[in-house]
Formats: sequence, C-alpha cells, structure tokens
Amino acid sequence: MTDALPVGATVGILGGGQLGRMLSVAAARLGLKTHIYEPGAGAPAGDVAHRVTTASYDDVEALTAFGNAVDVITYEFENIPTSALDLLETLAPIHPGRQALATSQDRLVEKTFLQDLGLQTAPFADVTDAASLTAALDRIGTPAILKTRRFGYDGKGQARIMMAADADAALADMAGAPAILEGFVNFSHEVSVIGARGPDGAVACYDPGENVHEDGILRTTTVPARLTPGQRTDAVLIAAKILNALDYVGVMGVELFVTPKGLIVNEIAPRVHNSGHWTQNGCTICQFEQHIRAVAGWPLGDGTRHADVVMENLIGDDMDRVPEIAKTGAAVHLYGKAEVKSGRKMGHVNRITG
Amino acid sequence: MTDALPVGATVGILGGGQLGRMLSVAAARLGLKTHIYEPGAGAPAGDVAHRVTTASYDDVEALTAFGNAVDVITYEFENIPTSALDLLETLAPIHPGRQALATSQDRLVEKTFLQDLGLQTAPFADVTDAASLTAALDRIGTPAILKTRRFGYDGKGQARIMMAADADAALADMAGAPAILEGFVNFSHEVSVIGARGPDGAVACYDPGENVHEDGILRTTTVPARLTPGQRTDAVLIAAKILNALDYVGVMGVELFVTPKGLIVNEIAPRVHNSGHWTQNGCTICQFEQHIRAVAGWPLGDGTRHADVVMENLIGDDMDRVPEIAKTGAAVHLYGKAEVKSGRKMGHVNRITG
Repeated sequence: MTDALPVGATVGILGGGQLGRMLSVAAARLGLKTHIYEPGAGAPAGDVAHRVTTASYDDVEALTAFGNAVDVITYEFENIPTSALDLLETLAPIHPGRQALATSQDRLVEKTFLQDLGLQTAPFADVTDAASLTAALDRIGTPAILKTRRFGYDGKGQARIMMAADADAALADMAGAPAILEGFVNFSHEVSVIGARGPDGAVACYDPGENVHEDGILRTTTVPARLTPGQRTDAVLIAAKILNALDYVGVMGVELFVTPKGLIVNEIAPRVHNSGHWTQNGCTICQFEQHIRAVAGWPLGDGTRHADVVMENLIGDDMDRVPEIAKTGAAVHLYGKAEVKSGRKMGHVNRITG
Repeated sequence: MTDALPVGATVGILGGGQLGRMLSVAAARLGLKTHIYEPGAGAPAGDVAHRVTTASYDDVEALTAFGNAVDVITYEFENIPTSALDLLETLAPIHPGRQALATSQDRLVEKTFLQDLGLQTAPFADVTDAASLTAALDRIGTPAILKTRRFGYDGKGQARIMMAADADAALADMAGAPAILEGFVNFSHEVSVIGARGPDGAVACYDPGENVHEDGILRTTTVPARLTPGQRTDAVLIAAKILNALDYVGVMGVELFVTPKGLIVNEIAPRVHNSGHWTQNGCTICQFEQHIRAVAGWPLGDGTRHADVVMENLIGDDMDRVPEIAKTGAAVHLYGKAEVKSGRKMGHVNRITG
C-alpha cells in the first residue's frame, strides 16, 4: 500500500449519476475527497462530493482544471469521448485504463477481444452497409439484433431482425453508424460477476448474481444465482481472465448467459455495475468501496457474501411504493433525483432474504 | 410515512465532525441533501454535504440563513449554545428536541431525571462551593469525581478526589463553574445501548455493545457484550424508558455500568454515538441511517445484528497502522482529517469476528 492515496487526496469521477454518487460515498469512507465532472446540472453525485465541475466533455479549460485538481481519475460510464480522455490522461492516471475503455466502448472490438481470449460470445458480424448485413444474416440467421457498435445502453440503438425482410428498416435505424449483427443466444437466465482487480494484480470477485431485465432495463438481481458449483467457478474464472487480459484496475461488471453449452459472455462494463448493488447490504466491502480501493491503490477488501439478497431497482413510478417498502426490513437506497421520469432509475432496494 | 421528508429535502446538521459526516452519507442514502453548520473550517462532514456554512453559533445572520435553508435540524453534539437553539427552533423543527438537549447538557439535570425515572445512577450531589463540596464528600465518600455540570466530554472538566485533601484542588479545577460530585461505581464493565425512537413513538434498540475506554476516550466496542439474557433485556428496557420519557425523536446512546446490583446509567448522549459505529457493518440499517430515518419521519429500519463485530477507534498515530489493517478483511472508516493529532479520533475499524 506504499502508493495508496493518502487521507485528503482527491478522486476525480467522470459522471455525476447514481454510480458516481455511491462511489463518492465509498471514497469518503476511505478518507478521500471526490471531485465530480458532469455536463448536466444538479447531478445526484454532487450532493455527496467535495467539488463538482459542471461542464461538457469538450470544454478543454474545464477538463484541464479538473485534471489538475485531482490525484486519480475514474468514471461511472464508459462512453466518455476519446478527446477528453486524451487530454485527461496527460494530467492524472485514469483507472480503469484506456484499453478497457476502448474495448467496452465498441461492441465489435469487445466481442472480438472476448473471442480471442477463448471465451464464448453470441455469434456476431461487422455490418457497415446493406451488403455486409445481408452477408451477416446469411451466416448468423434470424432472429438477430442489429446494434450500433458504440454508445448503446439500456436497449437503445438496437433493432431486432426477426426475418430477412426487417433488414432494411433495422439498418435505417442505425442512421449510418457502424453496426454489429448479433445472433440470438438460447439461454435459460442471465448472471453477472462483479470482479475487481488491484494495481498489484490481485483479483477478487463477488458471488455471481442472477439478473432479470424488463424493457431492456435491469429489474432485479438475486444472490445466490441459480448456478451449479461448476458454473459458479466458471463465471468467476471468466471474469478473472478478462480482468487480467486488460491489466485492469477497478471493478468490472461481466454479464453472462447461462446455456446448456456453458456460459456465454454478453457484455462487459468497465465500472461499478447496477447488478452489483446488492453488495452494499450483502458484503462487508461493497463494489463501490472495492472500486475506490483499487483505483486509490488500497488492497482489495473482503467481498465475501454474508447474506442472501434480492436487489430491486426503483424505476420511475416505483417511487410511489417507497413509503410501503420503508416499513419493511429492506434497505432503501435513493439517488436524490427530484424529478420522477418513466424508465428513470430513481433508487434501489436490497432485501435480505436469508 | 405521510410526513416523511421527500427526496431532495434538506437535513440541517449542527456540527461538521465525523458524526456529521456519517449522518450526511446516511441522509444521501435516503435521497436527502444535508447542510452542515460548523464554526471550524475544513469540516470532515463538508466533503459529503450538499452545503456547508462556516460560522460561529452566535452569528445570528448565518444561523437565520441556515434555519431558513433546511427542512429539519439535527446535531452531532449536545453542547449547542442555548441562544442558537432558541433562534433555530423558530425556523425549523429540531430533533432530538429541546428537552433531550437540556437534560443531557447538564449532568445534574440528567442524573436527577434518571433517578426520577426510577433508574440507578452513581451517587451524586450538587456542588456550588467549598461548603457544598464538603457536605457532598461527607455523604458520598471518596474516591469520587468532581465534574463541571455542563460541556464535559472525553474526560475533560473532571477532577478525581481520592481523599478529602484533594477537594480544594479539584474545586479550583472547576474554575467557578457549577459542578457535580459523583461517587465511584464498582462495575465490572461498561456497555451501551444505541436506541432509536421515531416520531410515531416506535422504539428500536441495537444489541448492547461492550465498551473499553483508555484515557477517557472510547477504545473499542464489542458485540455481543458480556451480558446475561436478563441484563440484555434490562439494558434495552432502560433505553426505551429514557427515550419515551423524553418523547425522543432520533438515536440516543445510553452508557451503562454492569454491577452486581444491576445496571447503572452512566450517561446519555442525545445523538449518534461512537459506541454504535459497529452497526455500519453489523446491521442492515446502521445507527446513522436510523437517526436520519427518525428525524426525517421515515419508519425505523431493521437494526437486527447479523454479525459479531469489534469496533476499534483509530486515534492519533493509530493511523500508521491503517496500511496493515487495510490488508485484513476489516472495514476501515476514515474521517478525512488530514492532520493527525494525539488523542484525535481519525477513523475506526469494524472487524467481523463471527
């Protein structure tokens, strides 16, 4: 821990949403200050941060001041413009590093990386125009999903192709952006591993959680997940393999499909992950502190699961249920977002179930 | 929960030390903002608060602006000047209320209150001058402790009287302040109950912890405490009796001496308490969130203990041990105080022991 950030040092966080908010609290627990960089006003993370810069990612002056004011930089979302990263990395270390970002920012690069590691993914093909889409559909078949290679989240920038006749409309949906065609995977359920890796190469993974999505948004994560002991080991080994291959520093979310042919990697997120929120009430050291520990050069903490937990996201009008939920033994975590919007993540609940 | 503070409402906290810091984080978890009022610059709570006012407790303008900017007021220490409270209570509700503060701010009032409730305390007597001290020593005997009635903490404002000849020096130490003579209690160990009471009268107490002090400062708290089932029940009943008698809203710390003649109340603190820090890693809802829940009109949360914990304070140079402690499975909580001083509480560690 020679190089660990001392008490009072500042962690810069790109993005001021709920993940930045919970990272900020975790940093405070280790005696660190945080400085949030966020284009939008009234960022949830701002309530618990030492400083907030409200500026866009192309504001060179603001980025420079931010980079000079912090001791290390991390982020709560992966779609940070490359130009901002190019500037910031000259001013302070960025963890997780550029390789992890470059890999996860582009679905084609990510899938190719995973395949090169010997891991299973959905069948995929590069799509740049109508001809390459036709060729891809010939190989992969239908149903399939056409997705933009970059900047996709929560089901946006995606078009299903149920039959060949849907291809033109799907391609039009991409609006000329480079795309990837992904074949459907016949899976029974989805699990995710939240893994952490320190600068010394130490790896610690949380027990896999089982995820249920609705309308492309995570609804619940349940631990323990329905996995055989062998699958559980595989899941953790897959996450560790990815972390090591990227020389990763920080917490990563790895989504996996459970199939009769083994675990198939759906996607990786180089950050703390919604499906790891259960760790706040199921472990001594939660994913947010684990991430800050890694980024700040602390040894990784104890992520052993001590309880069975169901994490439920509170989305939009789910907030109406908070008064009832608060009466139960559940742990409520709200993000301080005053305006309720449909599909907006407003908070989450961790229920201890055993 | 009709009157619960809505998301985005602001809790005002008097005092910006580590308790304010951890209260602020707990408030954020419930979607609330905090506004810290603290005379000293660079307050630890400021790192995780939405707003900070740096001003003295006799700054009427600053107090007025603070009172108008918040939806409810709470505090991290009990020695708030009465004039500040008189002003603030006209601007926003203060929880815990004035009665609890008035009782705990004055050792004589507190002991009398406890005795009137039928609870056991150390023998005590009002001391205003040499004559009353002589009379008190005649009744109580030596050894005894002379303490100022108000504004004592961590062993300050206290003088031991081992024999009658020490009386003059002890009285001189009081510097003319009203004092109380307390007889020694022959106790085997000290425990404390962290109790909470909501505005609806609901009471929830954490499992008692066993405290070890060094040089008048809390060193460790261990749960479970060494108590018989009967003593454990008594401890919780005593705390509940005090909470109800004060029509209390919030968390209170009740220190108890374990003696062959039963539990003797040492003192009460109308706030979150150092001996309740173990709850951060031993319970789903910690004392800080429990306090905010009560103060904000939320239902009390689940404070069931799910682990055995030893909490150790990190005082002064104990910070040198943090790198080693960080390598263990323990949960480290640092307060962000850059300057290490002898006797200064810098952080604490919660070790799960079972």
